[in-house]
Amino acid sequence: MNMPEPREEIKNFSPYTAGMSIEEVKEKYNLKDVVKLASNENICGTSVKAVKSMKKEFDSIFMYPQSRNKRLISRIASKNSVEEEMVITGNGTDEIIELIAKTFLSPQDNIVVSENSFIRYKMAARLMGAGVKEIPQKDFTHSLSGLVAAIDNKTKIHFIDNPCNPTGNYLNRAEIEKIIKEAGKLATPPLIVLDEAYFEYVDAEDFLSGIKFLSGKKNLKEDAPVMVLRTFSKIAGLAGLRIGYGISSKGIIELIERIRPPFNTNRLAQAAALGAMDDDKFMRDTKNLILKEKDFLYRQLKKIGVTYEKSQTNFLLINPKGIDIKAFCEYSLKNGVILRPLNGYNLSGHLRVTVGRRKDNKKFISLLKEFLK
Amino acid sequence: MNMPEPREEIKNFSPYTAGMSIEEVKEKYNLKDVVKLASNENICGTSVKAVKSMKKEFDSIFMYPQSRNKRLISRIASKNSVEEEMVITGNGTDEIIELIAKTFLSPQDNIVVSENSFIRYKMAARLMGAGVKEIPQKDFTHSLSGLVAAIDNKTKIHFIDNPCNPTGNYLNRAEIEKIIKEAGKLATPPLIVLDEAYFEYVDAEDFLSGIKFLSGKKNLKEDAPVMVLRTFSKIAGLAGLRIGYGISSKGIIELIERIRPPFNTNRLAQAAALGAMDDDKFMRDTKNLILKEKDFLYRQLKKIGVTYEKSQTNFLLINPKGIDIKAFCEYSLKNGVILRPLNGYNLSGHLRVTVGRRKDNKKFISLLKEFLK
Repeated sequence: MNMPEPREEIKNFSPYTAGMSIEEVKEKYNLKDVVKLASNENICGTSVKAVKSMKKEFDSIFMYPQSRNKRLISRIASKNSVEEEMVITGNGTDEIIELIAKTFLSPQDNIVVSENSFIRYKMAARLMGAGVKEIPQKDFTHSLSGLVAAIDNKTKIHFIDNPCNPTGNYLNRAEIEKIIKEAGKLATPPLIVLDEAYFEYVDAEDFLSGIKFLSGKKNLKEDAPVMVLRTFSKIAGLAGLRIGYGISSKGIIELIERIRPPFNTNRLAQAAALGAMDDDKFMRDTKNLILKEKDFLYRQLKKIGVTYEKSQTNFLLINPKGIDIKAFCEYSLKNGVILRPLNGYNLSGHLRVTVGRRKDNKKFISLLKEFLK
Repeated sequence: MNMPEPREEIKNFSPYTAGMSIEEVKEKYNLKDVVKLASNENICGTSVKAVKSMKKEFDSIFMYPQSRNKRLISRIASKNSVEEEMVITGNGTDEIIELIAKTFLSPQDNIVVSENSFIRYKMAARLMGAGVKEIPQKDFTHSLSGLVAAIDNKTKIHFIDNPCNPTGNYLNRAEIEKIIKEAGKLATPPLIVLDEAYFEYVDAEDFLSGIKFLSGKKNLKEDAPVMVLRTFSKIAGLAGLRIGYGISSKGIIELIERIRPPFNTNRLAQAAALGAMDDDKFMRDTKNLILKEKDFLYRQLKKIGVTYEKSQTNFLLINPKGIDIKAFCEYSLKNGVILRPLNGYNLSGHLRVTVGRRKDNKKFISLLKEFLK
């Protein structure tokens, strides 16, 4: 069959490699019990209130969703003390990342990212033919000086995942402020996109959410413009439904809204997100469990001599020296634990593991111990 | 707040205007009973098997969906007698339309569409900066000679909705074959995208699905390449969940898959689509009901002297002469019937109405009668 020529950008485009799902692993390895510690999902499941709210929407699934669901947008706005016109929802924040790229990036532009940031930022830029300035990390943390120095007059977007995925580290209040102030001094300041997917797990006292720059009109003229991304895929336990949101100035949201597909978020995701926002207890309990289990993992890893990065999220970056990570992931998979080998990152020898329930964490540690022998 | 300059394409981009939902109309007009005859949804609701299959997936919504759901892809492939690598699923076919544009269209390219085709084809092309060659229709039908003549060496994609939305008309077997053969004679044949969203409602005996060119390797070297789009939003009653699919050659699907967002279709949509494909009875019953109700509407419209186009879909394009369509839609809205005024189409004086259940159709006809007086 004939084939039209794809765009230049597509010719060498590397697709995202999704990890295996529990269903796929069960089938491939003929296993009954499989746990996934690979995608930083909420290991406690989903909020009961979210599920309840979703069930009420059943009779309506034959109808298209509301394009901008008024109740949801208004709830997100009030929760974050911003105006409704400052909110956009997406089919996961993944979609919002791409919408931002499609709104602003042309081949003559570039984006600045940290080398070990979430890989989808780079993919979104490459999709639009824009350049990617990847700044090496220092000690598994975003390099503040490196990032600030890299932003130039062709930089349209600076994506920062804070906390950072996959290292679990973060930039503190002073560092975030510095980036926003310094970038603001440029003739054409870039949009600073703060991806706060793991925001709800943070316990560092000097962490600053980008929302601070958006609520109450605190994003000053001399600052670079800010956009914050949040998701219902992590602590809210709705990864399978696909819903996230972005908050920025009205002007920026209006531009991105022009190209938002009209029915991008589905009815059940909209309803579940509304329910999840009413369930502070579920999120608090999850956070407390993760803090406790993170401590458990820290202690166990220390015991077996495996180094790790202190994490502000529900995952840990660990460095089990002297073993073949790919082989360990394969071994672990066959034993019913799905892990993330970090292909495509400059983190060879490292592994990202989601903090699980006690029995999951014990199983992971015992597999690691066995393999280290 | 500062704002980075958007791309040229975004500066004058007209967003899609989504119609009002039942929820919004109920609230705005303080109504209890509202029916939507605006978006060609399945007025009978959703297949029970789809809902049942969806419910089984509840416990898994905290986990990301499978990126390419093997069971679903394999079921779609076997149902259409094609290979699995020839199938792609999307967050509605709406997303697939945009993925096709992002794979193939650069500013030097153009697409060919019929003037009254689905508006999202043009939007996808404009998003990528490509030109749009819009061919006038003849008697509310795609102009075969016009379309064939318009395709040139810069045409990368020819989108054809067959049956056509919003006219309800269609191109027959000979016409579709002619387009594919004629376009195949060009040095660089365009991709012929046949959007068959309303395929299941067709009863014309000389209708030809584009699948004929894809199953059993019948898309010959001398043909233009073909891609077919199908959706679960219409007869399957899953518009609110967002899922559709595309079928083309392995080479074309492989290119588009490179840029498909990894978790674009949600878990519940995947499960519901699988259930819907097992429910031939639901779809048969819906089709029979629509055929009967279409006849009812034809007769009623004739009685009150309103002209209409014969339709192969679950909607009718009608032309109630001498009334202000916008005013009628507003009147109808206040009386609990949501209609589609067709903004953005070259069809002034026309109205698209979804074929409903008997009581919905009666209500629509009586509102129209009242307004015509």
